[in-house]
Amino acid sequence: MKPRAIVLLSGGLDSATALAIAQHEGFETHALSFRHGRGHSAELEAAKRVAAHRGVARHVIADIDLRVFGGSALTEDTPVPRNGTSEATAGTPVPHIPARNTVFLSLALAYAETVGAYDVFTGVNTVDHSGSPDCRPEYLEAFETMANLATRAGVEGRRLRLRSPLVRLTKGEIVKRGLELGVDYSLTSSCHDPDPHGRACGRCDTCRLRLKGFAEAGVPDPVAYRSAA
Amino acid sequence: MKPRAIVLLSGGLDSATALAIAQHEGFETHALSFRHGRGHSAELEAAKRVAAHRGVARHVIADIDLRVFGGSALTEDTPVPRNGTSEATAGTPVPHIPARNTVFLSLALAYAETVGAYDVFTGVNTVDHSGSPDCRPEYLEAFETMANLATRAGVEGRRLRLRSPLVRLTKGEIVKRGLELGVDYSLTSSCHDPDPHGRACGRCDTCRLRLKGFAEAGVPDPVAYRSAA
Repeated sequence: MKPRAIVLLSGGLDSATALAIAQHEGFETHALSFRHGRGHSAELEAAKRVAAHRGVARHVIADIDLRVFGGSALTEDTPVPRNGTSEATAGTPVPHIPARNTVFLSLALAYAETVGAYDVFTGVNTVDHSGSPDCRPEYLEAFETMANLATRAGVEGRRLRLRSPLVRLTKGEIVKRGLELGVDYSLTSSCHDPDPHGRACGRCDTCRLRLKGFAEAGVPDPVAYRSAA
Repeated sequence: MKPRAIVLLSGGLDSATALAIAQHEGFETHALSFRHGRGHSAELEAAKRVAAHRGVARHVIADIDLRVFGGSALTEDTPVPRNGTSEATAGTPVPHIPARNTVFLSLALAYAETVGAYDVFTGVNTVDHSGSPDCRPEYLEAFETMANLATRAGVEGRRLRLRSPLVRLTKGEIVKRGLELGVDYSLTSSCHDPDPHGRACGRCDTCRLRLKGFAEAGVPDPVAYRSAA
């Protein structure tokens, strides 16, 4: 029987690649996505497509509504940063989702305990998101340490591993690795501001990072962009 | 202006005491409770009563449904342990809620970031719950370390503090401290199996711990128990 792994699957480029890597390493993959306050339905639909295409054992979509805490970038409809506004800001980029990775990883940990998984894969990478504290390797290491003290795994001498295989890769390297593993990037969605047909804007920060990645990899991005982009 | 603190408020004896301690230390308190899969409505009603009585600045009740992950003590209606069955079991007591404190603390961290709080209070104590890995001081320290790497607070040189003032107190000491601070324990609810009138069973593990605490403190427990208890 294959060992099980939880894979946080946002529907974007990175997490689709992390899923393929987990499968390549021989894990039975259990994907986890979140339906949260802000309208990310295009991303969630992409997560469903990717999960189906990759043949995951199970895809859980958990509801998590951080709007209950009041004002924040996630909870209010702040403008999507574009044209490099977030890159120009020192420190944490906008929009800032409070304790984002910690909340998501904690729920992944609960899922892991429930199904007996000892590996949790994320698509976190730090090269292109250097401003976000919870994308740093030292954060991920501290989460793993905490997770092993939190759960039966640690007590029973099993080691929970938080796996972020993309953490030091550029977007170009991520795309190349994913293509080697058969990731169908046409199923993914990275845009913060897709149109009603799901077409990407080409201008928001995640679109720009994505396009840079495909340019670095020397291949075209297969998703549809609005002609104005 | 008072500094703000988040207080995890379950409605039980411990968290009501932790809330009183946070207020005694001069914090503007923001209480956080969870509505989760299993029917804990008596506990949640108690949390509302305690929050109102103590005059918290705000009481947020967040929905968190861990049933989505499948089988677990929280997610399935396993029998409530009573007559010491959990104490007789080595290791983690039953019912085990997967990654319970990690999920709750992560959401408290999100709340703290949202309202600019740097202190998170919990009623965790290890003396009476020695089997639960996520009640140990070393777990709490690891969570605090992780939290400071996860958020802007750590990056900006502010220190997030995870405060568990009851962690090494016995139930008797907790009751005595709460009474000094004016906690009205008649508003709290600890029973895992209250009757339709909200009366405690007196036999489940949390009832027994609670009754032991009041006995140690030398005062009667003001909540109602079923006569059969």
